[in-house]
Amino acid sequence: MTNTIYDQGLDACAANFAQLTPLDFLARTAAIHPDRLALVHGPIRRTWAETQDRCRRLASALSARGIGRGDTVAVIAPNIPELYEAHFGIPMLGAVLNAINTRLDADTVRFILQHGEAKALLVDSEFAPLAQEALKGCDIKLVVDILDPTITHGDPIGHLDYEALLDEGDPAFEWRPPADEWDAIALNYTSGTTGNPKGVVYHHRGAALNAISQLQDWGMPAHSVYLWTLPMFHCNGWCFPWAMAANAGTSVCLRAVRAEPIFDLIAGEGVTHFCGAPIVLNMLAQNAHLKRFDHPVKVMTAGASPPAAVIQAMEDMGVEVTHVYGLTEVYGPSVVCVWKPEWNELPPDQRARLKARQGVRNAALGGLMVADPQTLAPVPHDGQTLGEIFMRGNNVMRGYLKNPEATAKAFRGGWFATGDLGVMHPDGYVEIKDRSKDIIISGGENISSVEIEDVLYRHPAVNEAAVVARPDAKWGETPCAFVDLRPGKDASEADIIAFCRDHMAHYKAPKTVVFGPLPKTSTGKIQKFVLRDQARSLSG
Amino acid sequence: MTNTIYDQGLDACAANFAQLTPLDFLARTAAIHPDRLALVHGPIRRTWAETQDRCRRLASALSARGIGRGDTVAVIAPNIPELYEAHFGIPMLGAVLNAINTRLDADTVRFILQHGEAKALLVDSEFAPLAQEALKGCDIKLVVDILDPTITHGDPIGHLDYEALLDEGDPAFEWRPPADEWDAIALNYTSGTTGNPKGVVYHHRGAALNAISQLQDWGMPAHSVYLWTLPMFHCNGWCFPWAMAANAGTSVCLRAVRAEPIFDLIAGEGVTHFCGAPIVLNMLAQNAHLKRFDHPVKVMTAGASPPAAVIQAMEDMGVEVTHVYGLTEVYGPSVVCVWKPEWNELPPDQRARLKARQGVRNAALGGLMVADPQTLAPVPHDGQTLGEIFMRGNNVMRGYLKNPEATAKAFRGGWFATGDLGVMHPDGYVEIKDRSKDIIISGGENISSVEIEDVLYRHPAVNEAAVVARPDAKWGETPCAFVDLRPGKDASEADIIAFCRDHMAHYKAPKTVVFGPLPKTSTGKIQKFVLRDQARSLSG
Ligand SMILES: Nc1ncnc2c1ncn2[C@@H]1O[C@H](COP(=O)(O)OP(=O)(O)OP(=O)(O)O)[C@@H](O)[C@H]1O
Ligand SMILES: Nc1ncnc2c1ncn2[C@@H]1O[C@H](COP(=O)(O)OP(=O)(O)OP(=O)(O)O)[C@@H](O)[C@H]1O
Ligand SMILES: [Mg+2]
Ligand SMILES: [Mg+2]
Repeated sequence: MTNTIYDQGLDACAANFAQLTPLDFLARTAAIHPDRLALVHGPIRRTWAETQDRCRRLASALSARGIGRGDTVAVIAPNIPELYEAHFGIPMLGAVLNAINTRLDADTVRFILQHGEAKALLVDSEFAPLAQEALKGCDIKLVVDILDPTITHGDPIGHLDYEALLDEGDPAFEWRPPADEWDAIALNYTSGTTGNPKGVVYHHRGAALNAISQLQDWGMPAHSVYLWTLPMFHCNGWCFPWAMAANAGTSVCLRAVRAEPIFDLIAGEGVTHFCGAPIVLNMLAQNAHLKRFDHPVKVMTAGASPPAAVIQAMEDMGVEVTHVYGLTEVYGPSVVCVWKPEWNELPPDQRARLKARQGVRNAALGGLMVADPQTLAPVPHDGQTLGEIFMRGNNVMRGYLKNPEATAKAFRGGWFATGDLGVMHPDGYVEIKDRSKDIIISGGENISSVEIEDVLYRHPAVNEAAVVARPDAKWGETPCAFVDLRPGKDASEADIIAFCRDHMAHYKAPKTVVFGPLPKTSTGKIQKFVLRDQARSLSG
Repeated sequence: MTNTIYDQGLDACAANFAQLTPLDFLARTAAIHPDRLALVHGPIRRTWAETQDRCRRLASALSARGIGRGDTVAVIAPNIPELYEAHFGIPMLGAVLNAINTRLDADTVRFILQHGEAKALLVDSEFAPLAQEALKGCDIKLVVDILDPTITHGDPIGHLDYEALLDEGDPAFEWRPPADEWDAIALNYTSGTTGNPKGVVYHHRGAALNAISQLQDWGMPAHSVYLWTLPMFHCNGWCFPWAMAANAGTSVCLRAVRAEPIFDLIAGEGVTHFCGAPIVLNMLAQNAHLKRFDHPVKVMTAGASPPAAVIQAMEDMGVEVTHVYGLTEVYGPSVVCVWKPEWNELPPDQRARLKARQGVRNAALGGLMVADPQTLAPVPHDGQTLGEIFMRGNNVMRGYLKNPEATAKAFRGGWFATGDLGVMHPDGYVEIKDRSKDIIISGGENISSVEIEDVLYRHPAVNEAAVVARPDAKWGETPCAFVDLRPGKDASEADIIAFCRDHMAHYKAPKTVVFGPLPKTSTGKIQKFVLRDQARSLSG
């Protein structure tokens, strides 16, 4: 690199360089909009000034109790103000927020607390029994009970309660940005859909850039009202705690995802935006009669391919769906099905097909490709050739905590290997066909379980469906469908198979259909590894 | 710094780190929206794919001719597609864009070409005579004539024309992001309002962050239609060439700022956004009868305090004004008068007073304060105490090129000293009272020239006004007003002084009024140093 006139005397200093951090979003918004509503939780309504005040107290109190840079602070809580505050208060002192999935079993929670080396745990009283069980054998010096005033509580399990902790803190606490924007801000464990959860490390830079990207990609205006249907413990709520601070919006909290309160809050609080996995959308669609709002509402969905029928049902309800795709490893959604105005002119089924595609890289993601997993050679953009989806950029994790082998494997060749299989369409939009592990190979042909599921969801009697490979002497594997019917609806195996054959290539139609409720992970994802075991035993 | 679990095995690599650069905005938008309109210039309409293609050709051709990292490439052109392309094509090869003000005299242009060590110059044929004169004594190996097809041309002065240069280039040119996001992207000379222009160096990180911040602060939706009333050579058009790539919008070009074509283009091209100094707004307001659009339009204004009357006139026209403030040193506007919805309820004069304030830091700026220029102690937030305005953050320049002394002086104490004087209001909004050099000290009292000018602009006969200090034996200094009357209107010195005394504290009213057109810099800013000389000679 030659030394040019621009390489002399133009260095970084305190005046012209600041570490990127989403904490600054709170500082700026609290300064500009101190009296605007930041958080709504039942009767509780807190402004940005109050919220900043509480976050600073939290940072100050934890700091006084010996928590510092690089210490993990775990939280087990639903979407309540305290978990929102933890997204700022904990990183303010350089500590790392580990928001734990409340639906995990005690053994997994213990695994996470131990693996993440949590120095403190904040736990909502509803989950005190879970935490108490999980804490057995853990050595955590500080356990704090969150006593949400909107519920009743059992016996506390901690050293003090959250409000008492805040009382120890100083609202004038002077937090500092991280010494390096690469410093860890959060630790998030993967869903464990494919095995043991891994500890994904986020940094301040990535969190800031991805949060801003969310606003930009969704076209989310200032002062939006966001309903917390998506768990904050899932990829830090796709970075929306930070994004909502950046856009000086209002977060409407929600302890549990049920149709009635969701419809009530959308109407009552003027909610403009919310996020949720397709199963959440499905639940709302099935309760469309509860709808009692008529202002425009937008929903962002990811976590699984949203069945076309579910997208359609939402749009019929007047809710604009943005389909996104991501993983814990990339701060939540990093791929977005950018919608083109001209597509609005297309017939509904074509629109639905376009919207079912996962899309293009979001503004924060540097690169997205579908490529041969061995050679990393991109597949042709033909919408046909299957390859693995790879990503790179500033919203890709730092790596897996204490797991250099898994990190190196995930980052082989300078790209993050998602483990998802897909195709690249001629227009540059990615479409997921399956997880590597879920693809069905029948008579040498690749069959996408997702494609079959999409057809199954179009059957009027089907509530939920999942398809896995069933070992087969002749074909190697055949598709085996697990179907949960809608209450009061009926359909036979033959009906379902016939329906599939009517709507797709015959060789792709399931050969077996099993009826009954589907096993799910704690994030509501269908556990295909359980179904695979079941399918295997059918053949046994 | 202790070594924590987060400091081990979680390093940056190609998968999880990308240098920030606004060039990526073009890459992403051209990939997602290849067929969307990027640029309109008279009959010329170019898509994002075509624009990227041309930018790559430009980079490729310049690269083949030996231009590389850290080389300055100067451009003298109005707001035409070629200057837009230069914002991408030149940095794509690591070179540095120096867009030169077309209204400068040849000596100043020569000074800039020599000081910036330009290796190549692209010049629009309208400015060929200026360039030819400026090039005398310069040693520039490559001069390229831009032959805008919408005008007629004199004799070319360069080695080849722009289209021939593009023909040498490869549209598949693989540009790479800068090796470091701190690398220079642009060189911009200050207006020279206070003396010799200084060469301000921008980097890729700052340009990317400030461009995104512009979208966020203005709430600018995807696919906005932006009219180029603001010169791209002024702080790189406040980073809007890059911002428009990020939001996949359409840039409507404009060779010259005149009311008629502006109104025509707003109506004809469906312009949604434009920027301009208050004098541009003033010109439009005076031609309000030409208005023939009724869709919502937004204007961002900076460069000088917009007189309340001008803001009012724009809003009467249905154009929403966002008042911003910045300097060449901070990528254009870095302070924004964030508008609060509740202010809409206030009476017009109060609204105007609130909107005349410069405001709060934009999303990219890290810090903003009004402080004692010696001690850097912040002034009380009382809207009264005068201090100097200081800024810090990622959208503060790297420094002044080849001028370590000026850089060190500007960055003393870890803040950028703006040279502007202002107050901090209790709500955290900054209001400029004057430049350090322009404040009038009369009988020991500080009098803001801006405050007097604001009153003068409210006088129905006044077209433009500027106030400077006139040396005075008794008072030290007294305010001296220079006033340009509207065509066909009349007012005497006594009228003007009486009007001022009616509208402000008597001691602040001008003691002298001089009538006639006002001297301006090439950016249309009033040259107070010329007026100061005149005022001094009055007293002489
Ligand atoms: N829009 C979508 N369409 C299809 N699948 C999606 C979509 N969004 C997410 N997914 C699936 O979810 C996965 C990411 O989920 P998450 O990070 O929560 O953990 P997981 O992969 O389920 O768990 P683990 O990595 O522990 O097995 C993706 O790899 C993809 O398979
Ligand atoms: N909204 C505004 N209100 C009042 N003044 C403004 C506003 N925006 C910009 N300015 C003035 O313009 C200045 C920045 O202008 P610019 O960077 O173009 O060069 P200049 O300061 O005029 O020239 P030089 O630095 O060479 O003297 C600010 O320092 C401020 O004095
Ligand atoms: Mg996974
Ligand atoms: Mg200046």
